[in-house]
Amino acid sequence: MEELLDRINQPNDIKNIDPSDYKKLAWEIRRFIVKNVSRTGGHLSSNLGVVELSMALHLCCELPYDEIIWDVGHQSYTHKILTGRKEEFATLRQYGGMSGFPKRAESPCDVFNTGHSSTSISAATGLAKARNIRNGVQKIFAVIGDGALSGGMAYEALNNAARLKSNLIIVLNDNQMSIAKNVGGMAGYLGNIRTNTNYMGLKEDIENILKKMPHVGEKITTSIRGFKDVLKRVFIPGMLFEDMGIKYIGPIDGHDIKKMMAAFDGASKVKGAVLVHVCTRKGKGYPPAEKDPSSFHGVAPFFVRDGSARKSAEAKETYTDVFSQKIVELAEENKKITAVTAAMPAGTGLSAFARKFPGRFFDVGIAEEHAVTFAAGMAAGGLHPVVAIYSTFLQRAYDQILHDVCLCRLPVVFMADRAGIVGSDGETHQGIFDIAFMMPMPGLTIIAPKNSWELREMLSFAINYNAPVAIRYPRGEAYTGLESFKQPIVNGRGEWIAKGQDIVLLAAGSMVKTAAEARERLKKEGLDISVVNMRFLKPFDTGLLEEALKGHSLFVTLEEGVVTGGFGQAVANWVNNRDNSVKVLCIGLPDKFLEHGSASILKEKYGISADKVAERVLETYEEEKGKA
Amino acid sequence: MEELLDRINQPNDIKNIDPSDYKKLAWEIRRFIVKNVSRTGGHLSSNLGVVELSMALHLCCELPYDEIIWDVGHQSYTHKILTGRKEEFATLRQYGGMSGFPKRAESPCDVFNTGHSSTSISAATGLAKARNIRNGVQKIFAVIGDGALSGGMAYEALNNAARLKSNLIIVLNDNQMSIAKNVGGMAGYLGNIRTNTNYMGLKEDIENILKKMPHVGEKITTSIRGFKDVLKRVFIPGMLFEDMGIKYIGPIDGHDIKKMMAAFDGASKVKGAVLVHVCTRKGKGYPPAEKDPSSFHGVAPFFVRDGSARKSAEAKETYTDVFSQKIVELAEENKKITAVTAAMPAGTGLSAFARKFPGRFFDVGIAEEHAVTFAAGMAAGGLHPVVAIYSTFLQRAYDQILHDVCLCRLPVVFMADRAGIVGSDGETHQGIFDIAFMMPMPGLTIIAPKNSWELREMLSFAINYNAPVAIRYPRGEAYTGLESFKQPIVNGRGEWIAKGQDIVLLAAGSMVKTAAEARERLKKEGLDISVVNMRFLKPFDTGLLEEALKGHSLFVTLEEGVVTGGFGQAVANWVNNRDNSVKVLCIGLPDKFLEHGSASILKEKYGISADKVAERVLETYEEEKGKA
Repeated sequence: MEELLDRINQPNDIKNIDPSDYKKLAWEIRRFIVKNVSRTGGHLSSNLGVVELSMALHLCCELPYDEIIWDVGHQSYTHKILTGRKEEFATLRQYGGMSGFPKRAESPCDVFNTGHSSTSISAATGLAKARNIRNGVQKIFAVIGDGALSGGMAYEALNNAARLKSNLIIVLNDNQMSIAKNVGGMAGYLGNIRTNTNYMGLKEDIENILKKMPHVGEKITTSIRGFKDVLKRVFIPGMLFEDMGIKYIGPIDGHDIKKMMAAFDGASKVKGAVLVHVCTRKGKGYPPAEKDPSSFHGVAPFFVRDGSARKSAEAKETYTDVFSQKIVELAEENKKITAVTAAMPAGTGLSAFARKFPGRFFDVGIAEEHAVTFAAGMAAGGLHPVVAIYSTFLQRAYDQILHDVCLCRLPVVFMADRAGIVGSDGETHQGIFDIAFMMPMPGLTIIAPKNSWELREMLSFAINYNAPVAIRYPRGEAYTGLESFKQPIVNGRGEWIAKGQDIVLLAAGSMVKTAAEARERLKKEGLDISVVNMRFLKPFDTGLLEEALKGHSLFVTLEEGVVTGGFGQAVANWVNNRDNSVKVLCIGLPDKFLEHGSASILKEKYGISADKVAERVLETYEEEKGKA
Repeated sequence: MEELLDRINQPNDIKNIDPSDYKKLAWEIRRFIVKNVSRTGGHLSSNLGVVELSMALHLCCELPYDEIIWDVGHQSYTHKILTGRKEEFATLRQYGGMSGFPKRAESPCDVFNTGHSSTSISAATGLAKARNIRNGVQKIFAVIGDGALSGGMAYEALNNAARLKSNLIIVLNDNQMSIAKNVGGMAGYLGNIRTNTNYMGLKEDIENILKKMPHVGEKITTSIRGFKDVLKRVFIPGMLFEDMGIKYIGPIDGHDIKKMMAAFDGASKVKGAVLVHVCTRKGKGYPPAEKDPSSFHGVAPFFVRDGSARKSAEAKETYTDVFSQKIVELAEENKKITAVTAAMPAGTGLSAFARKFPGRFFDVGIAEEHAVTFAAGMAAGGLHPVVAIYSTFLQRAYDQILHDVCLCRLPVVFMADRAGIVGSDGETHQGIFDIAFMMPMPGLTIIAPKNSWELREMLSFAINYNAPVAIRYPRGEAYTGLESFKQPIVNGRGEWIAKGQDIVLLAAGSMVKTAAEARERLKKEGLDISVVNMRFLKPFDTGLLEEALKGHSLFVTLEEGVVTGGFGQAVANWVNNRDNSVKVLCIGLPDKFLEHGSASILKEKYGISADKVAERVLETYEEEKGKA
């Protein structure tokens, strides 16, 4: 049988599909997505939820002339399919392949790169203003989830969109979820709208009643802002948005293409900013994902028949797992411990804590800034909060970490999970800037464990330390090697892993393993080098460095993060002030955004694999010897 | 005559004042504030606006048991007076004296340090949660202006406060202003509440009418959430907050102490989060400030009689002035230029641009994150936006600069005004982190002018450069010396100011002047040193550095920013990789928060004055010579 999808090969091809075939096309797109993601891994639930929504948008737009911005962007697969990128799905999120997020470099139909939440309305407002200034007439859509709407930036943008009055359609994709179930006052408000399905009938009733009372009606009319306004205020959902100056249309079934098309057409005739409230279901059409949308948010390859993972079930323990267990253990004894997540209870490993200590667990929604200052408030109130946020998202709370936590030396522990290269999510999700942005923060202690044992110990240390501490650790399997090195964690102290001569590797966190491996490789070259587990990136162990100055002429710092502004440069600066005859080589990531691809490929490419480190060290050592 | 203020010497003393004397006390406090600020300088309008509000809060609280958090904190003078810090006002904002902001270190009545906007509700929510966990019964107040409410973080906090249901009173201090007039959808909404003064009468009317129609009433009741709800929805202001799950009380006259006390008492009996909407007038009670609250926001010493500045009128041209003129000049020719400010049109120098090009000027309110991504959107739409935000506030948009601008190399120009030491505002306002947080951002060009001529040229350069550029320049008078050095600005190129031998000073921005002065001082010591104006902090001029390697054994980097992660460390790293025999000394600010005090005192104290630089260079040079 002919596939409708065969006829979708470039932007706007969907317009040649007969409306009676929309359902079938939606079905084919879902099948296509499930099949492909089951092989490559990727985002599933969010993409299955917006198939009809994406189709309706494309039917209302002329692409790339009109502009659609996808908030977060992990729901853009249908958009990619409909803009001629079907064939690329075989390489989805793989090195050199198609990104899982919208990329301007990938298609003119991707008008704005996204990855982090709550940016779309701001970007759309800017695009709308630019269009007005150049006298364009493009339609501009920002598609934002109800989860992303809990981010303050979205509210800042609504506030500004209301004022600028540029034509702009905000599509609120309401699925009652972030990655996890949505929370907060706004979520409650949207819930009320959804459940009050009898608005329209009511509206007619009251209209009739009030018509019969001309006197009353008049009195109200003149007193407030007119008859319609009163009606609206009582019966129309979305007054919160209208109160802010954003016209509201909805709620609309987000799986009914015709209704959405009508709403988008209506919205595009309105002057100013309009919000179209569309209700969708995450995971729609694939039963395992419908049943458990959180688990199918981002998935590894799986079997389509039942959603089970393709890889054998004996999953290796991750650093997240280690943290998950240890925080519960510590919290049993220490009642001051509370835990905060920004919409990622499962991802950060806090689900177990949440079950065990519901009164001390806080999911604040996608709101990293609030998460940090809320924790600072708890710390000022005598508690010891632990804030678990992925490295890439922690940068959203830069000002709050610096001012609200560090300035008063409040005891808040930051768990910067997914620090370093994260792999297939790519540019917007690599956790490579955290060391660089935290190093200059006065009074912040930054530590990184070499293995799972050390993460446990470091968490204990942090909880017993009366000042801010950040612990950074990578995505994925926790390293369990170097298990014999178990010196207690002492503030500001590193640990010797191997004592050799001439060359010392000063490694941070995940790079300790790499350093130990590089040492083995260099042994084959006849070099017996030293390896140090720095543990403390800040304050780093100057006593140990002093000691290392004896017998080593080449210091090599190793970090899984950008070199510029990183821990290595700070060490180099200290060492060279102390003894200028020592050469310090800083190994880390280059000054660029790193694309998607497997972590091992990227580590090799960017020079932080054990092989590459060994090569570079050898090269530098020989160069220096040549000079001497 | 006895002064009431004489009886206010410690927290809670206000409770001994007879209510009939409240007006007199308010008058005395205002007189006290005006008198003191007229001598020391400081924040005026905001403090005059909240005299009665502060009194009412103190009358309802037992301090320091109960907790009051002042958003931004520049309105805390009455609070300071009422908590026994009257005598310290002679030293307000001066080195070693009392801070102009709440400081935990200064008084137990200052429960949370503030300085940047929109953090108070988050902190208060945290404090409230901590209180609940330790079974306390403190009252907790967050006092937040309507301006600060445009910051997204405040909304994130409301969202979470609604959900947590901890007792917490948010006092919305509505004066229709940030520093400038308030803007945006929320401002419009609050305006509607304020102008609909006949709510209460109307409410009675409609109540009577509906009572006469039992059938209709019933029908509505069962359909929505009850009779009261309908009434509220039509007639009660603040439904936006109620919709989010925050109980609303108001609007209340913020200069009527009794009414506020009644409202606060009522609010403290409510379960969960309550917002009390209080309307105040900025500058209240001092006619010049009432008339022009913006100009009297933060003031230098002035004459009380008419508000005129104490210093002679021949004000020196500031870098802000230079930018203000140049951007207008450039925008006349280049229609793509737009300008964005986050609630500081005057402070950033954009007022003239706003008057001249109202359609291309955007004040987005206190919303730095949105400001940046809104600009990114405009850039994606073909414009060339200039975002003017003080260095200290720019850090609030870290993620947006990195992801929304740099990731796509969008042509946005950041004007980081007040970069470096700002003086009397102190810790929360020093612009000392911007270099360090921007250096690691891939593709961001960072430049800093040596004098006013160069700022103009750099702005031209930035506007003609098709990628993100940040220009940083200090607060205050623009340097006009070194006027003969006028080499055109070329991407990535520095400029030789003096060629000498042995020692080369590599100076960034404001430190070029310092370097030139240090060179003069060192001449007296018999040293003829070289000075370079780096211009480009990133990418820095490696060609020039290469050249400098000939004939110089000591490189000294100079920046008005923290050394850790700064430009100097990056240069040192490059130089030492190139030639390890060269010593690189990085001069900049230490790894700590810098207190308030005059810029000259702080520069001397922290070692970046010309004298201190000369001393340190000489010392290092002699040390190195000793070694050789």
